[in-house]
Amino acid sequence: MSLFDTHRALLQGALDALATRGYWSPFPEMASPKVYGETAQADGQAAVQALLGKDYPLEQPGEVGRVATEQSPYGVDIGVRYPECEPEALIASARAAERPWAQLGRKGRFGVLLEALTRIHKRSHEIAHAVMLTTGQGPMMAFQAGGPHAQDRALEAIAYAWKALADVPEQALWEKPQGKNPPLAMQKHFETVGRGVALVIGCATFPTWNTYPGLFAALATGNPVIVKPHPNAVLPAAISVSILREVLTEQGLDANLVQLALSEDPAHTQQLARDPAVASIDFTGSNEFGRWLGDNARQARLYAEMAGVNTVIVESTDQYAAMLRNLAFTLSLYSGQMCTTTQNILVPKDGIQTDEGHKSFEQVGQDLAAAVDKLLSDPRVVTAVLGAISAPQTVERIREASGKGRVLLASRAVDHPDYPGARMHTPVLVALTQQDAAIYGRECFGPVSFVVATDSADAALEVAASTLREQGALTLGVYSTDRAWLDRAVQLARNARVALSINLTQGVYVNQSAAFSDYHATGGNPAANASYTTLAFVADRFVVVQRREHVAAPPAA
Amino acid sequence: MSLFDTHRALLQGALDALATRGYWSPFPEMASPKVYGETAQADGQAAVQALLGKDYPLEQPGEVGRVATEQSPYGVDIGVRYPECEPEALIASARAAERPWAQLGRKGRFGVLLEALTRIHKRSHEIAHAVMLTTGQGPMMAFQAGGPHAQDRALEAIAYAWKALADVPEQALWEKPQGKNPPLAMQKHFETVGRGVALVIGCATFPTWNTYPGLFAALATGNPVIVKPHPNAVLPAAISVSILREVLTEQGLDANLVQLALSEDPAHTQQLARDPAVASIDFTGSNEFGRWLGDNARQARLYAEMAGVNTVIVESTDQYAAMLRNLAFTLSLYSGQMCTTTQNILVPKDGIQTDEGHKSFEQVGQDLAAAVDKLLSDPRVVTAVLGAISAPQTVERIREASGKGRVLLASRAVDHPDYPGARMHTPVLVALTQQDAAIYGRECFGPVSFVVATDSADAALEVAASTLREQGALTLGVYSTDRAWLDRAVQLARNARVALSINLTQGVYVNQSAAFSDYHATGGNPAANASYTTLAFVADRFVVVQRREHVAAPPAA
Repeated sequence: MSLFDTHRALLQGALDALATRGYWSPFPEMASPKVYGETAQADGQAAVQALLGKDYPLEQPGEVGRVATEQSPYGVDIGVRYPECEPEALIASARAAERPWAQLGRKGRFGVLLEALTRIHKRSHEIAHAVMLTTGQGPMMAFQAGGPHAQDRALEAIAYAWKALADVPEQALWEKPQGKNPPLAMQKHFETVGRGVALVIGCATFPTWNTYPGLFAALATGNPVIVKPHPNAVLPAAISVSILREVLTEQGLDANLVQLALSEDPAHTQQLARDPAVASIDFTGSNEFGRWLGDNARQARLYAEMAGVNTVIVESTDQYAAMLRNLAFTLSLYSGQMCTTTQNILVPKDGIQTDEGHKSFEQVGQDLAAAVDKLLSDPRVVTAVLGAISAPQTVERIREASGKGRVLLASRAVDHPDYPGARMHTPVLVALTQQDAAIYGRECFGPVSFVVATDSADAALEVAASTLREQGALTLGVYSTDRAWLDRAVQLARNARVALSINLTQGVYVNQSAAFSDYHATGGNPAANASYTTLAFVADRFVVVQRREHVAAPPAA
Repeated sequence: MSLFDTHRALLQGALDALATRGYWSPFPEMASPKVYGETAQADGQAAVQALLGKDYPLEQPGEVGRVATEQSPYGVDIGVRYPECEPEALIASARAAERPWAQLGRKGRFGVLLEALTRIHKRSHEIAHAVMLTTGQGPMMAFQAGGPHAQDRALEAIAYAWKALADVPEQALWEKPQGKNPPLAMQKHFETVGRGVALVIGCATFPTWNTYPGLFAALATGNPVIVKPHPNAVLPAAISVSILREVLTEQGLDANLVQLALSEDPAHTQQLARDPAVASIDFTGSNEFGRWLGDNARQARLYAEMAGVNTVIVESTDQYAAMLRNLAFTLSLYSGQMCTTTQNILVPKDGIQTDEGHKSFEQVGQDLAAAVDKLLSDPRVVTAVLGAISAPQTVERIREASGKGRVLLASRAVDHPDYPGARMHTPVLVALTQQDAAIYGRECFGPVSFVVATDSADAALEVAASTLREQGALTLGVYSTDRAWLDRAVQLARNARVALSINLTQGVYVNQSAAFSDYHATGGNPAANASYTTLAFVADRFVVVQRREHVAAPPAA
């Protein structure tokens, strides 16, 4: 059985799920021994342990040396040494790998990708541990977001690519009537051809979840890929690249279709990005480098997810306690280091109506602080939910934020029972007023949230609109029992082109985005120019090359 | 019956045709009185005549005066005075028109567009005459390319937009199992929202064919459009805009959803292009302005068709006479002013094998010149096929080209029996050698072709590859009886990402592209970054804005 036939049902399941966007996930998010095997977690951790401090087993063209760039937020000594390769060599070998990949045919290519994804899935615990150690995520989140949820996003990209490619017929018989004469008849072939080398630039916090969509979308549409992970979160990407190369090699294909690029010199990435052969760049990261790419890598189509200012507006609620618990979890999860985490919580200065009576602005702030404090009072919850702080600069931002307004909840350093060197800090909550736009109107990445007293609930909509227009956002949340006001919030979300969550009080959080159902980012505001996943994410990664030639028209029936 | 229901079959016909890409055209290309009405042609011409020298009947916001910019290549006094409107006013009224357009709903919008397209079709003779007078096209071509073929391309864009939008479910019930507990249940809505104001910049030669795809694609995906026609070919665009506005007004919608922009000051277009509200630009025209747009209108997604160097390679043929006739027509049609017209004809210096025996390079050149000469010896053919020269600079290029090599066929000025002021010139053919890349390696727009002696047939492939890499092309033609060599040509076309026509000897020409079957431009080489029409042409013109809210899960079955 071909690889494609082996995995055909998986692809079909994804296509079916995307047609309705109900709940679906082929990769179980529970790290249960019953699902993944009794020894899977221990095996995965041991596999990562065996890599630490050594040369990573990856041989690529143009290697000039080895580099170890990762500093674990958990204080673990990573020290994995990856190959540093000349950009020219990476580009040349990527280009050379394109032709055999194309010749494999569509089903052949999709079979390889689905096989690789299935093997990635089987190594979820290993990848999860690598994600945890490099990003600072808590273990459960590292497993879910770094494993099955990332795999869902990969499969989603593969399925969209399938749809976009399937829209192009492979050939056509074109017969144009010529009155009494025989028709003009032509045989036409339509070949889908990748645009060229794809560069996929990962981020420090979600090295698989934010890398897989571009990686698999580019490969599926016929392009060789160079994966350039964030220097601090290389290992999860390296393992993923290795698995793809392993399957390619087994199939007698050119493993250099997928390569890893790493260097301590920023000019290395810049050279790759500007290479004329690079036709697309997927980028997750800072606005600063995103802008640099837009300004300088002009030959490439850029798919960028950058910073935004995510906002929640509280107008009223009939589930006050549940709302606070929901928000507290959102602010705490992975220490607020998700691109979808709420930064600004807008509350009318005159307070809000709730099922527990009227609550003043002051009271809402105190109650939210108490909810976060309560959530993080259990040491086991702290390590599970909070995780560690990815970058030292984030700790500095927490300190600075504390001086920018009235502190509702002070951040405190936390010790990890198993990782004495872990960089752990609880969230800081700062009260501001509507006039403090200079503070809350820009991204302050990390566990920093501003509870902003707005002049009114409608003023909160205006504040959010203004922030969204200038900075963009991946998420907007609102709480209200007033349908008319909610309609205005829906209009705001539409105009600002941002995803909206309404009255989240149960086990779904504004910062969560479920593959096959939720579109992650709209691509229509300054925080991102593309979405996981739409047809637009895949359709321009290939072109149609047609050829046509006369044939004798078949005899009339 | 709603407009959508009225035109549902037309849309479905297009969707069916695109699924197979065989021959299909809902708009008859024969300007037959039986199809279009006995008096249709005379009526259309009279309608245009009635507009000449007057204020064009179009009222738009922010009018600061009237401008008449058109100089007919036929020497006809056009003198139509169009409104010049302030860019700020055009942008503001476009933005204001977006919301009611969105609220109309998908079927409502498509109904309006299909109704407008149908009315455009009914006025084909009028638009054709406007195309002829402003572009210099011959009357038959002006009718076909300016009328039904352009309408086909419009419908194609509408159909692709329908497909891309239909890929997004309008809502979903998402239920995530929670073990023994009731599932988490959310109702999700997915709204497709246009990216913002679309600017559609037309060209001097095909003011409808190259304008309709972007115009209708942008409208169909929810965006207001400002049409900026070429100053010399305004009338066909203005009539089209007026028809759209007429239907919008009838439906009680805001006519400013579609506006015309015109000014004698180039800064006017530049200001529009750089406006932050402009989210997309469709552009057909010069590399120079295309580059300016790419450099300066950075906020907008650019869909650009620019200059390229189209090539035909003659390796051998078993239909020598038919090949020459086919090429002669290609070079003559609209005086070589199509973006798809062949500029370089590569022939091995040692000649070629044909069904009429071996032909030397010299002989092929002479025979091709004779074929063009013969085609244009009939005065009726001359006026029908050649048409007039759109721009005075093209006449200058003909003169210059004659001095760049050995002239195989001299250009001659031609008189038009009905239009004494017509600017008509027959094609010039110049022989060059492979070493003359500085001459043939760049675009020389107009009825100028170079017959280039290459060192061999394989060298011709290399020459073509080099030109394609540097300049791009919309078309590549080859003639050969050697399947192995043709396979190499197919590879070349694939690598260069250019559409290939093989052994055209019948009534199809390399410069022709049939909607619903042929993809026009691949979008993958320097001549164009987008194609008529693929999913990529429409899918990124809108974003998906989702909202989600908990609902009580329905009881288990």
